[in-house]
Parts: sequence; structure tokens; C-alpha cells
Amino acid sequence: MDKLSSLTRFKASCPFLGRTKVSTLRSLSTASSPRFPSLSALTERATKCPVMGPALNARSKEIVAGYASVAGNADVEQIHKEKGVFPPAGATIEMCPHASAARAAARMADDLAAAAKKKAKHAATKHAKTDAAAAAAAGCPFHQKAAATAATSTPVAAKETAKPKASTPGGFNYEEFYVNELEKKHKDSSYRYFNNINRLAAKFPVAHTSDVKDEVEVWCANDYLGMGNNPVVLETMHRALDKYGHGAGGTRNIAGNGAMHLGLEQELAVLHRKQAALVFSSCYVANDATLSTLGAKLPGCVFFSDTMNHASMIQGMRHSLAKRVLWKHNDLADLEAKLKQYPKETPKVIAFESVYSMCGSIGPIKEICDLAEQYGALTFLDEVHAVGLYGPRGAGVAEHLDYDAHMAAGESPDPIKGSVMDRIDIITGTLGKAYGAVGGYIAGSDDFVDMIRSYAPGFIFTTSLPPATVAGARASVAYQKAYVGDRQLKQVNVLEVKRRFAEVNIPVVPGPSHIVPVLVGDAALAKAASDRLLSEHNIYVQSINYPTVAVGEERLRITVTPRHTLEQMDKLVRAVSKIFAELKINRLQDWKAVGGRAGVGLPTADEEHVVPIWTEKQLGLLDGTTPHTLHTGEQAVVDRKAVTIARGRFDELLGKVETEAPASRATGLGALKMKTGGAGAAKRIAGVSEEAQIPAAPRPVAASA
Amino acid sequence: MDKLSSLTRFKASCPFLGRTKVSTLRSLSTASSPRFPSLSALTERATKCPVMGPALNARSKEIVAGYASVAGNADVEQIHKEKGVFPPAGATIEMCPHASAARAAARMADDLAAAAKKKAKHAATKHAKTDAAAAAAAGCPFHQKAAATAATSTPVAAKETAKPKASTPGGFNYEEFYVNELEKKHKDSSYRYFNNINRLAAKFPVAHTSDVKDEVEVWCANDYLGMGNNPVVLETMHRALDKYGHGAGGTRNIAGNGAMHLGLEQELAVLHRKQAALVFSSCYVANDATLSTLGAKLPGCVFFSDTMNHASMIQGMRHSLAKRVLWKHNDLADLEAKLKQYPKETPKVIAFESVYSMCGSIGPIKEICDLAEQYGALTFLDEVHAVGLYGPRGAGVAEHLDYDAHMAAGESPDPIKGSVMDRIDIITGTLGKAYGAVGGYIAGSDDFVDMIRSYAPGFIFTTSLPPATVAGARASVAYQKAYVGDRQLKQVNVLEVKRRFAEVNIPVVPGPSHIVPVLVGDAALAKAASDRLLSEHNIYVQSINYPTVAVGEERLRITVTPRHTLEQMDKLVRAVSKIFAELKINRLQDWKAVGGRAGVGLPTADEEHVVPIWTEKQLGLLDGTTPHTLHTGEQAVVDRKAVTIARGRFDELLGKVETEAPASRATGLGALKMKTGGAGAAKRIAGVSEEAQIPAAPRPVAASA
Repeated sequence: MDKLSSLTRFKASCPFLGRTKVSTLRSLSTASSPRFPSLSALTERATKCPVMGPALNARSKEIVAGYASVAGNADVEQIHKEKGVFPPAGATIEMCPHASAARAAARMADDLAAAAKKKAKHAATKHAKTDAAAAAAAGCPFHQKAAATAATSTPVAAKETAKPKASTPGGFNYEEFYVNELEKKHKDSSYRYFNNINRLAAKFPVAHTSDVKDEVEVWCANDYLGMGNNPVVLETMHRALDKYGHGAGGTRNIAGNGAMHLGLEQELAVLHRKQAALVFSSCYVANDATLSTLGAKLPGCVFFSDTMNHASMIQGMRHSLAKRVLWKHNDLADLEAKLKQYPKETPKVIAFESVYSMCGSIGPIKEICDLAEQYGALTFLDEVHAVGLYGPRGAGVAEHLDYDAHMAAGESPDPIKGSVMDRIDIITGTLGKAYGAVGGYIAGSDDFVDMIRSYAPGFIFTTSLPPATVAGARASVAYQKAYVGDRQLKQVNVLEVKRRFAEVNIPVVPGPSHIVPVLVGDAALAKAASDRLLSEHNIYVQSINYPTVAVGEERLRITVTPRHTLEQMDKLVRAVSKIFAELKINRLQDWKAVGGRAGVGLPTADEEHVVPIWTEKQLGLLDGTTPHTLHTGEQAVVDRKAVTIARGRFDELLGKVETEAPASRATGLGALKMKTGGAGAAKRIAGVSEEAQIPAAPRPVAASA
Repeated sequence: MDKLSSLTRFKASCPFLGRTKVSTLRSLSTASSPRFPSLSALTERATKCPVMGPALNARSKEIVAGYASVAGNADVEQIHKEKGVFPPAGATIEMCPHASAARAAARMADDLAAAAKKKAKHAATKHAKTDAAAAAAAGCPFHQKAAATAATSTPVAAKETAKPKASTPGGFNYEEFYVNELEKKHKDSSYRYFNNINRLAAKFPVAHTSDVKDEVEVWCANDYLGMGNNPVVLETMHRALDKYGHGAGGTRNIAGNGAMHLGLEQELAVLHRKQAALVFSSCYVANDATLSTLGAKLPGCVFFSDTMNHASMIQGMRHSLAKRVLWKHNDLADLEAKLKQYPKETPKVIAFESVYSMCGSIGPIKEICDLAEQYGALTFLDEVHAVGLYGPRGAGVAEHLDYDAHMAAGESPDPIKGSVMDRIDIITGTLGKAYGAVGGYIAGSDDFVDMIRSYAPGFIFTTSLPPATVAGARASVAYQKAYVGDRQLKQVNVLEVKRRFAEVNIPVVPGPSHIVPVLVGDAALAKAASDRLLSEHNIYVQSINYPTVAVGEERLRITVTPRHTLEQMDKLVRAVSKIFAELKINRLQDWKAVGGRAGVGLPTADEEHVVPIWTEKQLGLLDGTTPHTLHTGEQAVVDRKAVTIARGRFDELLGKVETEAPASRATGLGALKMKTGGAGAAKRIAGVSEEAQIPAAPRPVAASA
């Protein structure tokens, strides 16, 4: 508390901090900067001080201290003591997440210093006049701490004199209000810090951080299959970009509707064997626009919403102003009890998901369809985390539930009568996850889709997605529709990672899907584990805290792709296990001892919950057609037949004049160097006679920074 | 009415049409298909009939009739008589818009037949079983009419057996409800038909239609400056695509935040000389998310909304559930009277636009700032149709109002104290119009932006824009920030087109901005004029009808770019004038005679309204530095200095290892072939010493189909 008293004293004389609350300063001092997560928010703010900004800039190259926050050790310990979980007895400051943050800060300081150097000439002139003031400020304890660790980058320095407008005398103080709202986020630890992650197409799943030379392995992205760098996707996009330029140039109604958009919608309608599909800016917008339009239009509409539904669905239902009844996650009895309370003729919409992305549970789709039919409700199924990943053609869990029938039906656009996918009225999906693109869509009957198209402001009054974007998305959908191997290998790798975690007693929330949620059970520990994975092991897994998951169920949400290698898995599991030991995070037996949490270590383990939705037969394990998990240096499989099909979609749209992929572009790509697979390769993929490979296999990443 | 009676009779025996209302059939028969605007909706629907679908498919190559709708001549005349405006005495069916639609249908039928041929082998097997039924149906009058004009494309044929699910007995009939909702749209003529327009990067402003060989000149896109195909934009995107692949792979919080995103936000913050900026999926989302968050958070917030505000702002305010007070468009007295009614301490937000896109009026920004300060309100300014187009750096109208000061301040990120842009609290803009990309953003104070970043679900819970998209957008912003010539030439061309329209008495709604709204004053005539421009003159200008504009103020909204040639202008003005004559649409004197409408032909012409916001000095007309309007075949100017700056932004983000544009990629582009300008060229651009040219000048397009 001594620290705060001194803060209070000196802030009174500091014009820059004068109007900032002590509690805000405290929050800022313990919080990371949103732009530079390894620096504290207070440090970043200090760089904007008209007095200290230039001084920090000048010192940035010289001083890189081992502590990334102006919060003192005592403060850190106090915070941990109050939480009662951390640090364990005998822990030293070196085990504290701040220590790793400091190393990251050192890394960043180098980067910032390099950027600052470029601007040196400019700065010399610009900052001369404040040098004296900077020197005078050297006695300020706040400024000294900050100067010890921070460095200004160009954007930060750029803002040094830009200050919020003072509010009108007697009027509401807006800026103070914003600060207070942010403080709430700091206080309940829900303030979000964005890591700077740049996923490299040629090194999937590796990304660089703010430093292009600093590479990390990504284990939490939603580019679930690596389609963001699939060669036929990139080739198609390069071609579309050259042909049609960047933006669409208008709304769908005014100049922004072209063959690429119509082609993608056709592809998606056929994927789901529905009459029509409609593409939106994102699936957030698709869900929001569709549910809000539906709820506002249907007379007396009542929504029945699973409690774990995504924010976009919740917003859509709220925006409609229609009644919304919540039913317990995946609880059919609760759903039925609530449906029963309304007359049969009342319009009802049951809104739910197939794969719930934060826990990996799967909705009982078929049983919900039964209830919907019984009580006269529409079914609205969000397959955002399932499209591309389930079903023989990647249409999602609804397709997967009739796997063999859909596989047999192949490319036929006709619905399979009585199949689960046919019984769903409205399917929404994304192009931004398994398909590696951006955008979202709905699929359903002609008239339903046409009504949304005609009435939803979120669809009507916005610039449509760029032609190259939708062309790339379509190539991705077409590729995955024709090739099951990525889906199979992804699930095989998920099982492998889960198996390895189980071996070292790392608690994974059990589930039948591809999500691997590693339970931590504490917000501070989850963030610390995430920070430490990044700074000490070059592994990026974002921690998931409240409000995205319940308090006490904080986790590391790990996403496994077909392109992660055995060596990367090995490194991940070792690193997580090491950090669990260092931070004394509960392992499986610890949760068992306290009766379990979030499905982990429950006394009566319900084995049904952990049966994966992909059977061994579907994975190709019974006939040996499963693609094998990559070793480092091995080339990932690219299916030649699927490439030909995906390329053909674009060729067809362009007509005969463009039916051949221009050699110059293909050469320019440097990615589409396909070879026929080596011995055994052709045998690995069921029903695919030819294969190709891309040189996109990840190289090992140095374990030290 | 005889027609409808026969429809009623035969529909009773048709299982496909049996459950469709007569009124719906009538609507469908007079409405164009949304997918194929040159076919009627009924014709398109017929292609889905399990009986007639295959028959139509088989006949598509053989029969192309001169009439695109099953609506008979009598029906068309009746509709026109009821409206009392059209056709004039002596008009023949050839002058009817259906005649031109028929020609377009012929064009499309060829295209569809070609597509059908590809599928012939498949179809032969698939449709064999229904051939007999098809033959039997040949006697049906509906089917005969439809067969005479329609052809099925693959997507339509694909859906032939996909039928809407029957509703649960006793339950609400959802499908019937959708049909009724669509019927309302048909009845009030607000149903929207999407033209298939594919804007060609190498032939800007030319696009191809559904047929790649059928090219039209686009005069209504919002790619206001042609930045969608600027060579440095495309080069940057190709490089980013190769480097980072397609999608971002996650939300900004989880793996979807990278150097490209942060770089763009920095660029935008500096553009508006604000502390921070935040990028969203679109400006629709930016407006919706920001206003709904602000209104929901600020205690007792009251919105003051200009009556002409965009749908996205209206939705955002509605979603917040805060009070919303409408004030008359651009009426300061009305705004003040309404502000006065609330206590000074009540949080208020004045939401308005700079350029109103459908009429081209400009908001009194400075005066609104005065009122906001006086009454303690926040100012929320939508510069969507102004960024890139106004101001010396393209920051919008707020910047333009202090033109010289902002030009002098150059690249400085610091706010200019007391300037209009500085006085605006929140600016929103788009990357999807003048910047030729996609996405939207807000700019404001650090804490404001951080609050929206932390609380707006529409920002938080959605996949971020692809790295290549934001890299391309940033290149565009940086280019336009450094080069004023496109902005100048655009306005010069706008004046030229307005001047030419005035010469032939075509009524243009007066306004100080770049929008050229040609008043038609009737929904049917506006659509007919648009259809005829497309089918007979290969000119694409979408008609703007209710609800986007008021009934009686229907118009053709023309957007003029720096890349439209003198020859294209000449062709446009001639074509519009010809169609005005043919359709007997009111000219300027006709509106004057009836007292004026929508600002056109008012008795007391208010000259102040028509003074363009760009002065002659700002346009470079006084010192002769204005770029000149292109002739067909001339190369458009690409400013070399701006290219260097824009390219540098990307290089800088990638660090030293990537500071040189790879030769292979630049060669692969085929677009960035810059030359130093010819004699005189260097003199044309104020303050720019070097220039470059791209071979992207449009070639003439054949006037006949």
C-alpha cells in the first residue's frame, strides 16, 4: 500500500497523471499494454507523456530491465496472496509470469529500438525542445520505473500530444466514463490483451510475432485445416485479384454482386443440400442479421436458446426484441419442458450449435429436430466450428450423423429425405475457420433465404466481400468437399494430442469433437501459463478466461491441425507439463480429489461423453487409408483430384477464355509445386487415386528466444 | 384479369404451383428473377418444377423468344395505366422495358445453354426418368410460356427436387409466412434484383456480366477512385497473400491480430489525427457495434439522429435501446431545439454524416460541433462516403474544412487544435469505397476506442479481416494520403458530367459533393431506365427506389471516377438523354413547371447549395496542376512517390529481410509497369515531382450487345 500512497503523492504534481484515479493507476500498473502485451499499460501510457515520451524514446536502446511492470514485487505478491492460489510456497520472482514478460519485453525493446532508429533524424529535431523537461522529470518515481523498461515505437511517439478533448463544463464527462468502464474490465480480469501473431503461409503452423525473426508455433488458431495457405486457394485468389481487383465496389444490390458471389452461394447450397445459401461479411453478421430479422418478423416469435450459444446468436435474438427462453446446455428435457409452455401455433425458433467451441461438446441435433417437429418449431443450427471438419464432404455434424448416406450421394445437390441435415431448417456456417478465409453464410429454403436477403439490413446495406475472397473461399469449400484426408488426419492428431496429455495427467475437458480444452481453473494461472508458453517455449496458446468461460473453468484452448508434426506435439505436451509443474496447476488427479470440475475428473466418468464423433472406420483406421501424422520436414499432402475440382470451379466461372491456369501466375506462386506422392502415399487416401505435395511442412523452431 | 383466372384454373391441377397464391403468381410473373434479372421470377421458379425443369433444360438451346416474362402485354399495359405515368400515348411494346429485358434474356440464354452443355452427359442420365412427364406437361400454358424463354443453369437444375419442408400440423406455417413477406416486397416494388456485375481490374471502369464476353461500363460503383486495382494495392496484396495466406485464422484476441492489423489502425489514426483507430469487418458493423455499445453503456444516453442517416447507424442506435431523437436533415435549428429539451449533464450523441450518399448533400459539421459543445454532446460523424475523397490527405470532409492547415501539417499525427476534425469526437469510415477494399473503422480517443474494443461484441467475437485485405487497404490509404490527384480529377470529372447533363436538361439533384443523382421520380421508370441503359447501351447504373429514397424521388445514382474517359461521359449523357426521351421522363423544365422536386427545379434556386466543396484552387485549376480527364486509350496516372510510400509501409512491417519487393512477384503482377510521365505530365500534379503510369486505361466497349 506504500506504493499507492507514493503514487497518490506524486500524481498530484504531474499534469499528465493528475486527473487519473489512483485505482486506475493501480489497474494500469498491473495490466499489460493492449498493443505491447509485454509492457504494462502504465508503461505504455507513460510513453505518451509529453515530458517523458521523448526521454523514454532516447533511453530505449540503453536500458532493458528484467521487469516489465512498474508494479513492485510486493504488489505482485500481494495480488497473488489475495487470490490464495499463487505463488506457491518457495516461489521466487523468477517463477512469476512477470519474469517471462520481462524477457519478452527485452525482445520487444530491441524491435522498438530498431524502429525508433529509423526516425532518429526526425526525433532529434522534434524532441529537442522537451529534452530539458525530460531531464527534470528524471526524479519522478513513476517515470524512472517506466523509463527502465519501455521504449516508444513510432505510433506511440506519434501520439504524444494528442489528448482527449475536455468535456463541456457542466456536461457529462465522457472520457472519465470510458476510463471507468475500462477499469471494470481490469478489475474483473476480463480486459483483453492482443498478442501480435502473424501466421506464415509457408511455415504453417508457425507465426512470427512483432519481430519477423521471432517465430512461434501456433496451437490455438481456427484455421483448423490449414486451408488459409492451401495452394489452390492461394492460386485462385491471385488469379481473381488480377482479374477483378480488390474490393467488390458496392453492396450486393449496387455493383457488388458478381459471378464469384453467386458461385460461392451455389457451392454452399449444394454442400448443405439446401435450396439456397446467402453470404454475409462474417458469420457473426449472418447470425445477428438472420436471427434479428426472423425474430422481428415472425409474429409473436419465441426463441429457445441453448445457454452456451455464441455471442452472435445472443445478439441477434436480443436485437429482434422477441422473447428469448434459455434452456440448459444440451439438456433435451429442459428444452422440451420449455417448448411445452407455448401453444403449438406460436412461431418458435430453437437456436443451437453443433460444436460448442470453448468446451468441445456437440449438440444432440437429431433429438432437437424431433422436438422441433413435435412442437412446431424452426431449427436454427450454427455449424461454425463444424463446417469443413465433419461429414464426408465437410458439411458439418448434421451431415456426419448420416455419414454413409451422404458419402454415397456424393455431389448430388438433392436433400437426403429424412436425414438430419435435411430436417434442419436453417444452417449457418463460417468461411473464416476450417475454410481458412473470411465471411459467413446461411443455408435453407429458397423463400427463407430470399426473405432474409430482402429484409436484413445487415445484409442489404453493406459492401459485399471482395471477389478474390469469395473465390478463395469457394476453392476451399470445393477442395474440402472432394477430399476427406485433412478431416481424418485432424481428428487422428487430436486423439494423439489428447492421448499424450493423458499420459502426463494434464486435464483435458472431455468431449467428442476436435477441441482440446486444457483445464487450468484460475484466470491468473491460465494467463501466466499462456504467457510462459509464448515467452519460454515459443508456443502460442491464448488463455480463455471469464466471460468466455465460467469463473473457475479457465483454460488453454488448443486446436490441433493435420499439419502439426509429431515433434511439435511432443514439444507442446512437454512444455505444458513443465509449466503445470512450475505453476503448480492442478493435474487430473488433483481435480479428481476435489470432485472434478468442468467435466474433468468427475467421480462417475460418463464414458459416452468421450466417444469421438469420428468412428475408427470413418477415420480410415480400419482399412489403413488414414493419412499419417507428419514428421518435421515431411511434406503435407495436397490432393490432386481435389485441386483439379477446386480450380475447375474458378475456370468455369471465367468461361472458356480463362480455362487454363496461367503458367506465369502458377510460377509466381511458388506454392503449387505438386508432385505425385511417394511410395505408399497414394494408398493412404481412400478413394483418391492421385495426390500431390506442397513444400509447406514446418521446419523446427528454435526453442530459445 | 382473364389471365389471372386461367392461372387460377390451371394451378389447381399443378402440384408444383398448387399451394402458391394467385397474388403471388401475379407478383412473380411481373417480377424479375433475383438471380437472372432478365428472366421473370415465375420463369425462374418454373425451372425448379420437377416436371418442367428438365424440359426447360432440354429446350434452352433451341428456343429463345423475344419476351422475358409470362406477363402478357395486356398485363403490362394495365400496370402502367394504373400508375398513370407510363407508357405515354403511342408507346408500343418495343418501348416497354420488357423488350430490352428480352434481348438481355437472349444474351443470358446463350450463356446458360453453354453451361448446360457441359453437364449434358450428367443430365442425360439424371433427367431421363422425367422426360415422359415433361412431354405430358407441354399442354400447360404456364409451362409453355416459361419454356419459351427460360433455360436452366446448373444451380437451378441442381435444386429441382429440393422442396421446403412442410410445416408441422397445427404449427405455424413458416414457408407460407416467408412467401407472404416476399409478396409485400413485390407489391410495393421494393423487391431487389441483383445484377451480375464483375468489375475488371485491367479495364476499369468496365465489367463483364454473367457472360465474360459481355462487357458494360460501370457508372454506379463505390470504388470511387479505382483503388481496387491500383498497382501498389494489388502488389501489396499478392505479397501479403504469399506471406500470410488467406484468412486471419481467429478473432483479434485469439491468433487473429497481427502486424497488418495494427499497422492499418495506426495509419488510420494518423489519417484522422486521432489517438487511436479500430478496424471492423465493415463500416456497417463499425457503426452498429459502436453506437449500440455507446448507447447501452452511457447512462440515460440520448441519440440525436439526422433523418437521412444510414441504416447501419439507425440499427446501432436501435440495438442500444437508448432514446433516439430524430432531427430534420441538416437542419441546425431543429437539432438545437431538440438538444435544448435535455439537461446539460445528460449524455448525448449527435449522429450524422458528412456526405449523404443518395442525395449528395453535406452535413454542417462545424456548426454541429458548436452545438455539441454548447449542449455537452458527443459528435459521431460517419465519413463513409468522404474518406479518400475530401481533404488534402483524404481524411474526409472534416479535414477538407481546414484544407490548408491540414496540407501544411502533412504527415504529422498531431491534432490541429480547434480544427473541425479535432473537434469531432468519433469518426467512422470505410475501406470498402474510395479505398477500394473492404472493412470499416472508428477513430477517436485512446480510451474511447479501447472501451469499444473491450465491450463491443460485434468487434470481439468475430474473425478479423485477412492480413492481405488489411495490408491492401493500408496501401490504399497511404497512397491516397500522399497523392491528391485522384481526388482532384474525380471532382473535375463530376463537374464535367454535371455540366453535360445540364446541357441536355437532364435533372440532377443539386449538391456540393461527388454524387450525381439523376432524378427520375418514378419507381417503374427508374428501373426501366436502368434496365435499358444496361441492355441497350451497355451502361450499368442501378436505379435507387423506395425505401432507399422517398417515393417520387426515385433516381439513377451516378458515380464518376477519375478513370472515366471523355468518350465514356459522352456516351453516358447521350444514352441517358435518349432514354429520357423514349420513356418521356421529366427533364429539368418539366420539374420546374410543377414546382420542383427533391431540390430539382425549385422556384427559388438556392445557389449556395450547389457550390462544390472543392474550390477551384483546391482542384489545382488556378495553377494548372489539375490532372486532365482521360481520353479513351490514355493511361491513368499512378503517382510514383505515393507508390513508394505505400510500398514502404508493407516493407517496414516485414522488417529488413523483406524490404525489397521481390522481382518475381512484381513481374508476375503485370500491372506495376510504371513509366515516368510524358511531357507535361510531371507538371500536372501539384507537389509531386515524379509520376508513373499504368496500362489500365479502358478500351472502348461496343455499343451494341
